[in-house]
Amino acid sequence: MDLLEVFKNSDDLVEFPADTVIFTEGKEGSYMYVVMNGEVSISLNDTVIATASPGEIVGEMALINSDIRSATVTANTDCVLALIDQSSFESLLRHVPDFSLHVMNVLADRLKVAYELIEH
Amino acid sequence: MDLLEVFKNSDDLVEFPADTVIFTEGKEGSYMYVVMNGEVSISLNDTVIATASPGEIVGEMALINSDIRSATVTANTDCVLALIDQSSFESLLRHVPDFSLHVMNVLADRLKVAYELIEH
Repeated sequence: MDLLEVFKNSDDLVEFPADTVIFTEGKEGSYMYVVMNGEVSISLNDTVIATASPGEIVGEMALINSDIRSATVTANTDCVLALIDQSSFESLLRHVPDFSLHVMNVLADRLKVAYELIEH
Repeated sequence: MDLLEVFKNSDDLVEFPADTVIFTEGKEGSYMYVVMNGEVSISLNDTVIATASPGEIVGEMALINSDIRSATVTANTDCVLALIDQSSFESLLRHVPDFSLHVMNVLADRLKVAYELIEH
């Protein structure tokens, strides 16, 4: 699913300079983000466990099962992110058939990486 | 979402005696399962990271992003599981609106547990 195409005309595009902490583990959060430009890193306890590039999402967990961030996301470069709030998220799940499968895939991929980190 | 209600009349209910290894990490798999009765454990490298009780699902990752099992699931007690194959899974995603949100919640919960294991 090409999220860059879906969100290119979003009204909620926000620029973050390199090194900005976009959100912090343990804090409340109410948005997920699509990386439109640049790169962000996802970290636990100051250890980077993944990066996200254009077309990839971050922050989705706070909209699914809790409003507490489970990781910290930082801008690695200057970047532009599209913001998705709870009601837009629910509307996408309902009206864009591929979107929920896409989010499921992202979660399953992250879980695989996490399980590998636990094992090694 | 009450999966016990959804699957109680399933044609694919299978009984597993206690201690059966239902599937093994690293092997190919083509079903996910709803625990209808009893309890199963989910483990990585022989370490139990979670259990699943009636109404809970296991094995969903093999249907989402790969056919390789990312964990091992073992029957803790005699148990009855409902089998869901790839085409039933896709049909549930398409036709049962709450099912995809339910699966997303399960994945997000597992990811939270995994992140806590990585950090501690």
